Amino acid sequence: MTTTTEPGPLAAPAEAPVAEATSPAGQPRVAVAALHDALLGAWPQWRAAARARAAQPEFWKDESLSMDEHRERVLSQCHLMAKDPQHQSWLAFPERLGGRDAPGANLAGFEEFAIGDPSLQIKAGVQWGLFAAAILHLGTPEQQDRLLPGAMDLSVPGAFAMTETGHGSDVAAIGTTATYDPDTEEFVIHTPFRAAWKDYLGNAALHATAATVFARLVTGGVDYGVHCFYVPIRDAATGRFLPGVGGEDDGLKGGLRGVDNGRLWFDHVRVPRADLLARYGQVAADGTYTSSIDSPGRRFFTMLGALVQGRVSLDGAAGVASRIGLAIAIRYGAQRRQFASARPQDEVVLLDYATHRKRLFPRIAETYAMHYAHERLLDLFDQVFSGRGDTPEQRQDLETMAAALKATSTDFVLGTLQECREACGGAGFLTENRLTSLRADLDVYATFEGDNTVLLQLVGKRLVGDYAKAMGAQVRTGQGKARFVLDRVIDTALHRTPLRAAVQTVADAVARPAAGAWFDAGSQHELLAGRVAAKVEAVALALRPARSADPVTGQAIFDRHQVALVDAARAHADLVRWDAFTAAVDATPDAGTRTVLGWLRDVYALTVIEQDLAWFLAHGRLSTTRARAVESELDGLLRRLRPHVLDLVDAWGLGDDHLRAAIATGAERVRQDEARAYYAAERESGKAPTPEKSLKARAR
Amino acid sequence: MTTTTEPGPLAAPAEAPVAEATSPAGQPRVAVAALHDALLGAWPQWRAAARARAAQPEFWKDESLSMDEHRERVLSQCHLMAKDPQHQSWLAFPERLGGRDAPGANLAGFEEFAIGDPSLQIKAGVQWGLFAAAILHLGTPEQQDRLLPGAMDLSVPGAFAMTETGHGSDVAAIGTTATYDPDTEEFVIHTPFRAAWKDYLGNAALHATAATVFARLVTGGVDYGVHCFYVPIRDAATGRFLPGVGGEDDGLKGGLRGVDNGRLWFDHVRVPRADLLARYGQVAADGTYTSSIDSPGRRFFTMLGALVQGRVSLDGAAGVASRIGLAIAIRYGAQRRQFASARPQDEVVLLDYATHRKRLFPRIAETYAMHYAHERLLDLFDQVFSGRGDTPEQRQDLETMAAALKATSTDFVLGTLQECREACGGAGFLTENRLTSLRADLDVYATFEGDNTVLLQLVGKRLVGDYAKAMGAQVRTGQGKARFVLDRVIDTALHRTPLRAAVQTVADAVARPAAGAWFDAGSQHELLAGRVAAKVEAVALALRPARSADPVTGQAIFDRHQVALVDAARAHADLVRWDAFTAAVDATPDAGTRTVLGWLRDVYALTVIEQDLAWFLAHGRLSTTRARAVESELDGLLRRLRPHVLDLVDAWGLGDDHLRAAIATGAERVRQDEARAYYAAERESGKAPTPEKSLKARAR
Repeated sequence: MTTTTEPGPLAAPAEAPVAEATSPAGQPRVAVAALHDALLGAWPQWRAAARARAAQPEFWKDESLSMDEHRERVLSQCHLMAKDPQHQSWLAFPERLGGRDAPGANLAGFEEFAIGDPSLQIKAGVQWGLFAAAILHLGTPEQQDRLLPGAMDLSVPGAFAMTETGHGSDVAAIGTTATYDPDTEEFVIHTPFRAAWKDYLGNAALHATAATVFARLVTGGVDYGVHCFYVPIRDAATGRFLPGVGGEDDGLKGGLRGVDNGRLWFDHVRVPRADLLARYGQVAADGTYTSSIDSPGRRFFTMLGALVQGRVSLDGAAGVASRIGLAIAIRYGAQRRQFASARPQDEVVLLDYATHRKRLFPRIAETYAMHYAHERLLDLFDQVFSGRGDTPEQRQDLETMAAALKATSTDFVLGTLQECREACGGAGFLTENRLTSLRADLDVYATFEGDNTVLLQLVGKRLVGDYAKAMGAQVRTGQGKARFVLDRVIDTALHRTPLRAAVQTVADAVARPAAGAWFDAGSQHELLAGRVAAKVEAVALALRPARSADPVTGQAIFDRHQVALVDAARAHADLVRWDAFTAAVDATPDAGTRTVLGWLRDVYALTVIEQDLAWFLAHGRLSTTRARAVESELDGLLRRLRPHVLDLVDAWGLGDDHLRAAIATGAERVRQDEARAYYAAERESGKAPTPEKSLKARAR
Repeated sequence: MTTTTEPGPLAAPAEAPVAEATSPAGQPRVAVAALHDALLGAWPQWRAAARARAAQPEFWKDESLSMDEHRERVLSQCHLMAKDPQHQSWLAFPERLGGRDAPGANLAGFEEFAIGDPSLQIKAGVQWGLFAAAILHLGTPEQQDRLLPGAMDLSVPGAFAMTETGHGSDVAAIGTTATYDPDTEEFVIHTPFRAAWKDYLGNAALHATAATVFARLVTGGVDYGVHCFYVPIRDAATGRFLPGVGGEDDGLKGGLRGVDNGRLWFDHVRVPRADLLARYGQVAADGTYTSSIDSPGRRFFTMLGALVQGRVSLDGAAGVASRIGLAIAIRYGAQRRQFASARPQDEVVLLDYATHRKRLFPRIAETYAMHYAHERLLDLFDQVFSGRGDTPEQRQDLETMAAALKATSTDFVLGTLQECREACGGAGFLTENRLTSLRADLDVYATFEGDNTVLLQLVGKRLVGDYAKAMGAQVRTGQGKARFVLDRVIDTALHRTPLRAAVQTVADAVARPAAGAWFDAGSQHELLAGRVAAKVEAVALALRPARSADPVTGQAIFDRHQVALVDAARAHADLVRWDAFTAAVDATPDAGTRTVLGWLRDVYALTVIEQDLAWFLAHGRLSTTRARAVESELDGLLRRLRPHVLDLVDAWGLGDDHLRAAIATGAERVRQDEARAYYAAERESGKAPTPEKSLKARAR
């Protein structure tokens, strides 16, 4: 792991104090501080510094603001960031322009902005992760030198104008055109109809003075497909649209109200030939088009792939928000009591209810699994974008992994925040306790930067493609040994770098598991990897006839298996997380921590199995006896974890200034102590009223 | 069904126009208008009138308002309602006071308010369904005559002060006391500590001048448990708290921002003896307590049970909101196209994607199931509260059914609105398309009027209790015939009036189904009722040792089976809905409609089965072969329903003024037509650029 991007001397890590573990004697004990440090990941100081910054009031979401005020606040927060002497927001940019060429460190820090305000994360993401990143990744060095400084220091706020009202995830079908005019050596950017208006663009409603606009490049009567253009859109002094540019405010949204999303249209707007971002395609003065990538399809996907960092960072932000939600609900649940217990004058702590454990603890496990998988994703991202490991295969793996993880983690976080909010009852609904606000802001993560269903379909297609490649002409449909070999082939095919090593270790070390062994990595791997292999194989075989069919029949065949394809992709994401979690457990030096994390990994595995139990049963992977045991095994595990969950949550390093939820800071315990003292004093004074029930009992 | 409560001549039903069915020839056809009329239920004119009123702009949610402005708007909407010459909001009250003694008609109309603004529904619900209803149901006739008029005409806005910060669902444990002082013949209402502050009360932050306050009644040194008191809290002229009363604003919430929720505390506030709402318990001048209900426990639950209407109406409102969300997503999905199809120059309509059908159509089915079960619940509610069928057994059934349906429908609606929002992509996230706003407002329905987990536990306990009663000493654990008999016993026990008749019909009419018959009511009933019976039996047997155990062991045994208990309650709710749906299908006169509704019922049944498929497999109710067929059978059904879904949605009678979502009103089709015309004209003119791909193909 690279650590060449340490923050400067100003970055004194101002982390929340981490409490020491308090498990009962004789039990394994989580070494909270050490686990916390390990969870900071590959760029610990950058992540810690960003987390510390997010704990400063000037970066907090102010819930009292109107939409207009919130937008201005977030813009000024972005300016604060741009002036940050550590240049967190510049990490990804070239050293020659003041950056640090550190893409991984950049995202590690960027994700933590969600702690302050997700609107800030997204507004900053639009500026530096989309608008400036488009210049960085799609522009030539000359264009970077010329256009990046303004984007980096925010003197040119920018929009990323890709999505149109008529086309979101299907970028290839956008309607905006950029037609080359050799007479003036200009591109004419034009919106031909309403559906081709650019839409949902952060920064577009108010603040952007320029935009990176995606349009179909037409020159010499030929449509060379989607390319990106740098287009000034507003007069910086007046804030008014430049001639030929127009737009609309998207107005109120379900969340992220601090981001000024809007629409843009272009009426024959002329930009110089030099402002086609020309890394992957150039137009000569005479209109001749050239590209280093001959295939239009591959060129398109290469350009889009260069922008994968958005998906990577959303996977990270989903983890951040899950941790905030769970920390609030667990800390409250560990104090709040409700309904009489078996002990007199005492009520049951929420976490001591089986239903409460069941709704929250598996989500702690999945959040850990998400974290470890995300760290691998970040590493792969850093390898590719730092140039340390930039191969076409690695790029493809990165895109697949980012799609699989983003699509599932942004779904998970919404369910988790909702579960946390409900687990906190009416208090969870109050804005002062943060959960509803966070959930509203994270909502759109499920559909932006690629609709989750579309992304899972991409992942599924990749898996099926890999399967076909791995099997070549030898596809067999038999069961038994042939099938077992198949599993292994798939397994390897699905887990190339950086996962291969870990999977191999597990696969080599473990013999066939004994029936009934839930709690060893080998059995879990057999079940989870076997499930992916079988699901991918089933879809692959079902889709084979589509290849040789006419388009209509082909589409019909595909449609019939689309749900299964998406399902296989989800199973794959589960496996990727399980695998990363398992490797992390094995690599944990402290024995007590390793034991507890191992239980947590088991919770994750059993939860995944329980959620798809019917599949395991219907496909002979589990006997009915074993299947019926899952629930109670899981219940036992959750009980065993009960004394450790506060430690597991504390290891996330989220202090009161990160959580900012009244119910998570001990107020509940203070209230209970006061009530208890009142009743005790009343009893002692002899003035406590007699319960009617005792009276009746005495009368009998 | 009673129709004595027809609206007066002013109530011309101003329903949205209902389009006629447009299914392909040769297919069964939904008679949309007739189905629409049938769906209006037992009080069609009241429901239609309320729906028409909710379509009037003065009752719409104004998303642009600040919290303060929204609160004032909703208050003024309530005043409009109070002045409504039809007295919709007075329907439930006694005729002698201007009402109509029509509790069922009242709720049927009340539920529809959510179409205008859920804040209005809840604010009105606080005033007439909680504050005034407490006076109605817990007060004596004299108290009704004295206190109801002000509550009814809103000259006395009121809060319903039951929940405390320290105790929500566990009302029995509240800390507020009302101590009788025989010297002055007053009760002293007192909040002894912070946890006993009343909290989350609608109307309490600003508008309420009185409150129905729940407190533990203490007289003569004895605590007679929770009773309700009428307590003035604010000076109507100044809006200031009366001496001894204080409070706080709950501030911003995740939704329902038009409701001024707040906290109240009382410092030795004195109210006259006459203001104990005395229907179920009275205190004589000398302090002697009397009650018609001797058992303190039964008295407590009788008083709480009198307030069941909140839960009933939330079940209805969850249905209303589900219909709005699905109508928006289905209408948009029927127009929106994305990604190239097999036909040139055309893209695939979203509803023609298998994943899109799978995420939305089963929710249409469940929404229909919810509706039919809710109609039964309303009927039962009306029987009990109109006095037509007010027996202790009916009351208990009503409470169980309300708890089971409210807990599951308020969960369902949140998932549905989220699925709809994601199915509409970025457009779904914009406030102008309503889905995020509605979801935010409905969020708290999951935990208020009884936390859903707590409610399901109550239902589970009732089922287990019924089981124990039904079996008496004869409990057998054997399989085979004994077990089959058991199923039937349970079945009857679980489905007393008004369900018994329907269940019996089904049970009698159908012989043992042939294996593999998914699409007949008998097979489905066997699976769904058998599942309830088996789950209840399993929990009942597991809990038996708890009865004779010491408290600590008993609690531990209960805890070990709490998840299963809640799970059994959910299965019960599924069965109740399936049963109501099936009866409604059978009672549908039009053959085409009956056929399509039958398919929809099958979708509901198969969805429930698919969601719990592991249970059916692990418990030998389905073979692996049959289980593996569920997915494709369901997929086939969804395909078959595709031509009918717009009809099924149209039958809900939701016009543009009810939906108020830009994407659901045809704007998308207009945009597509424009884009298509543009491309067609371009091709015709010969000016269309050649795609690079074709160029390359030609070059080869």
